[in-house]
Amino acid sequence: MPDITENLVSKTIRIRPNNSHKGTYGRVGLIGGSQNFGGAIIMASKASVYSGAGLTTTFTDPSNLTSLHDHVPEAMFADYNDVENLREMIPGFNVIVIGPGLGTDDNSLKILKATLNAVNHDQIVIIDGSAITLMAKEKLPVPDAQVIFTPHQMEWQRLSGIKISDQNDTNNIEAVKKLHSIVVLKSHHTKIYTKDEIFVNPGGTPAQATGGMGDTLAGMVAGFTAQFSNTDDAVISAVYSHSAIADKLSENQYVVLPTQIIEKIPFFMKNHQTKK
Amino acid sequence: MPDITENLVSKTIRIRPNNSHKGTYGRVGLIGGSQNFGGAIIMASKASVYSGAGLTTTFTDPSNLTSLHDHVPEAMFADYNDVENLREMIPGFNVIVIGPGLGTDDNSLKILKATLNAVNHDQIVIIDGSAITLMAKEKLPVPDAQVIFTPHQMEWQRLSGIKISDQNDTNNIEAVKKLHSIVVLKSHHTKIYTKDEIFVNPGGTPAQATGGMGDTLAGMVAGFTAQFSNTDDAVISAVYSHSAIADKLSENQYVVLPTQIIEKIPFFMKNHQTKK
Amino acid sequence: MPDITENLVSKTIRIRPNNSHKGTYGRVGLIGGSQNFGGAIIMASKASVYSGAGLTTTFTDPSNLTSLHDHVPEAMFADYNDVENLREMIPGFNVIVIGPGLGTDDNSLKILKATLNAVNHDQIVIIDGSAITLMAKEKLPVPDAQVIFTPHQMEWQRLSGIKISDQNDTNNIEAVKKLHSIVVLKSHHTKIYTKDEIFVNPGGTPAQATGGMGDTLAGMVAGFTAQFSNTDDAVISAVYSHSAIADKLSENQYVVLPTQIIEKIPFFMKNHQTKK
Amino acid sequence: MPDITENLVSKTIRIRPNNSHKGTYGRVGLIGGSQNFGGAIIMASKASVYSGAGLTTTFTDPSNLTSLHDHVPEAMFADYNDVENLREMIPGFNVIVIGPGLGTDDNSLKILKATLNAVNHDQIVIIDGSAITLMAKEKLPVPDAQVIFTPHQMEWQRLSGIKISDQNDTNNIEAVKKLHSIVVLKSHHTKIYTKDEIFVNPGGTPAQATGGMGDTLAGMVAGFTAQFSNTDDAVISAVYSHSAIADKLSENQYVVLPTQIIEKIPFFMKNHQTKK
Repeated sequence: MPDITENLVSKTIRIRPNNSHKGTYGRVGLIGGSQNFGGAIIMASKASVYSGAGLTTTFTDPSNLTSLHDHVPEAMFADYNDVENLREMIPGFNVIVIGPGLGTDDNSLKILKATLNAVNHDQIVIIDGSAITLMAKEKLPVPDAQVIFTPHQMEWQRLSGIKISDQNDTNNIEAVKKLHSIVVLKSHHTKIYTKDEIFVNPGGTPAQATGGMGDTLAGMVAGFTAQFSNTDDAVISAVYSHSAIADKLSENQYVVLPTQIIEKIPFFMKNHQTKK
Repeated sequence: MPDITENLVSKTIRIRPNNSHKGTYGRVGLIGGSQNFGGAIIMASKASVYSGAGLTTTFTDPSNLTSLHDHVPEAMFADYNDVENLREMIPGFNVIVIGPGLGTDDNSLKILKATLNAVNHDQIVIIDGSAITLMAKEKLPVPDAQVIFTPHQMEWQRLSGIKISDQNDTNNIEAVKKLHSIVVLKSHHTKIYTKDEIFVNPGGTPAQATGGMGDTLAGMVAGFTAQFSNTDDAVISAVYSHSAIADKLSENQYVVLPTQIIEKIPFFMKNHQTKK
Repeated sequence: MPDITENLVSKTIRIRPNNSHKGTYGRVGLIGGSQNFGGAIIMASKASVYSGAGLTTTFTDPSNLTSLHDHVPEAMFADYNDVENLREMIPGFNVIVIGPGLGTDDNSLKILKATLNAVNHDQIVIIDGSAITLMAKEKLPVPDAQVIFTPHQMEWQRLSGIKISDQNDTNNIEAVKKLHSIVVLKSHHTKIYTKDEIFVNPGGTPAQATGGMGDTLAGMVAGFTAQFSNTDDAVISAVYSHSAIADKLSENQYVVLPTQIIEKIPFFMKNHQTKK
Repeated sequence: MPDITENLVSKTIRIRPNNSHKGTYGRVGLIGGSQNFGGAIIMASKASVYSGAGLTTTFTDPSNLTSLHDHVPEAMFADYNDVENLREMIPGFNVIVIGPGLGTDDNSLKILKATLNAVNHDQIVIIDGSAITLMAKEKLPVPDAQVIFTPHQMEWQRLSGIKISDQNDTNNIEAVKKLHSIVVLKSHHTKIYTKDEIFVNPGGTPAQATGGMGDTLAGMVAGFTAQFSNTDDAVISAVYSHSAIADKLSENQYVVLPTQIIEKIPFFMKNHQTKK
């Protein structure tokens, strides 16, 4: 069970080819942010943009429109209540994130179902936060796509049925296989379960234990998988980068805010891109 | 009557244990911010987050939703006019702040009453600003909880009945005892009256004499008491940290803005955490 | 006709007394900002806060509420369309600013008239921008208060009847006397006409020639006159500080934005306060 | 076919004359930003202001009002749905930008037509993004003004009818001549087709391949052409400055965000202004 190495991350974050354009770096659609939890989808969206996704579109409640633009005018907006439009737009994305701040009410469920039904097997679909809780509760099937779940331990319990105290690798691997998905199980040392392997994130600091961290990670996973062709490596590198930035900031800060991590992403990626 | 010492503060701001998560650092609910005084609850909420509270939820007027997310997307939003929802959510918090920018009209009173009725004796309840004025005016009883009042001198006059010119320790102690609360009496050198002792804050600068300072302090008291188990020490350390940051900034600034103080909290706490 | 000296400015920006509070530094009310020109009143309000005014309240169109809080949560909000409330609140301020982004339509005129009728001779009233244009057009009388006009040359033409080409000191002095006001005549080298003297601002850079500069100056004049007892000196010092900050920034910038000037005010004032 | 030289740029960015004012540096009106694409017009507007345009007014959907003021309070707002007002205000501008985030629906078309009909031959009109797509689709005639098109390669295909694979200089020159316009053809090394010459931009980095880059460039072209009398040189210098700033930032960043470029404009222009 290998630790993630800086070497793997550096191999993944390739030097950008000169002859490229926005389309080269992927189209990301993020879906979430009820009126109560708008900050979550805003942070995820900003993390996608700052990770280098070519084009980012955010489907959220209209009450979050202004805040979205304030934090990240580079992202486009769509009203997530217009489910018909959502369904029509989904095929246009390479990567979809659903869950940050989505909530668990009937409207959330309607949006989640529409999304899961609209995705196809060429798309990467990152399922996070309340979307995991809803899938577990409503026993929704895993969609036919390249699915990445990003649960914390309680959400993983809900999704897999494995109690937190029983969440060891043997049990987790079995559950992951049934999901035909990559699972990022967030904890002090986050583990990534791919189809074949388990990776352990060596970093992470208790300074990160604050609301919004997971939303930020979901956005980074989106940005990385949109750009880098090996999806396993992209997920692993996003997890590593997220906590490595936090570790660095925590040298001077008692608590590290998600928004502070986001602003450092472009600098971290430059420092860790493939060496010439 | 001891001055607060840097040593006490340093003992209080413990090194975070590695194996911890958001829940370890407390759930804070802040209630306030009418349409006219929205900035107050926004600054208090941001101070809570930047002090390291695990999860922060802000109950305020919907007109402040966007500004809240703009300043601190890490905080969650709830409409404080939905008193039924407020009542249901209150038991889920470790620390509650009521008052910053709450106002003193009928709606403010309704929200205040609902809050005071819903809290329980395991919760820390910080009562600030217009909530103090309203409690005094309406003769509302102190709730059965771990109450912390944070009045300035005029609010203390209203609450205790002691005129500003008569606010000496003898009179104040008597009034504090009747309240069964901690009282943070804000002035040039703020005093903290705990059950047993009086602490004097050695710091504080006239550069701080600007609107929003008290709201910021209330949020810091919330963040500190949410994380640190000795409530007296947490309150004392929040007061000390607030003015120590301001003192430092005032070396280069004629006036120190509350929002500037907030951004420095994570750095100050790191520098003053328990030495290894 | 003396240039403003750094010495005069330094004498004016006194060291703040230790035993002071928000009330010591004045209450400023700013009125302006239609739906089209909201940025103007926001910049003026932020300049007031960053100059050190104790408490700042902004009367503006509700469409500007969120932006106001985003830029300066330290300021309180009131809806300027509620003229009755405006009238009631005006006596509570030491300094009033009317004009930045006010516009010149019927609603603007209604608000202007209500303001001018409500002020009293103990108050400082700064009349700026479209409020000057409206007063000239509607031949509104100068109110019985300590009035400060801050016109640019075209607005001064409208107010005084003196064409720009005829705006020399002899003509200007005569017009100023009739107004019983201080006049800040903005141009490349701004002049301040007090009752007895003319002061010339030695600074100023063409890098400042961008929208919002005048609004920022109006807010600084408010903040300075709210704090410093000699009103002539306060106005002069605000004008000097505004362009001195711009001059410094222009060493590295082709254009200097008003918002950049505002952020530097606390630092400039510290560097130029009365020497011990 | 010359590369753009730093020397040409430096000759264009003249030292500002002391005796100047806002009017000296031009009035820019920007039109765009539907509810879904508000960030685009906000970035373009901010780029105009930070490039030094004297006065900037933004016509956009009211849903973008607050975000506009949050990013750039120096810009004025107008509702672009009030087409009558738009038509009346257009003659007051020296430079007009239409297109960033405008969209391609019926309302977009109505606004575009009104704009193209209202401009006159003394005005510079920058046509960008969806405005180009709409003009091509609806076969709208090029207006009688100093028109600058800023298409990327697909938009150029739509406008000129030349397929991307056939977009060589011979074909492009022919198409440009028919348009009686300057064409900025955006790609890895952007080319500027003036009436007489082709200029190649030597800079540009794949770190720029992210949404919002083109909107930012459109705003810079507006700011530069509003200030500098030789329009060809102004366009060329804006293109050069945009990518030169990005190249510099990309030394430390894997991706460069449009908003980061904008903040550097005043510094870049100062460093590259005409030498004394």
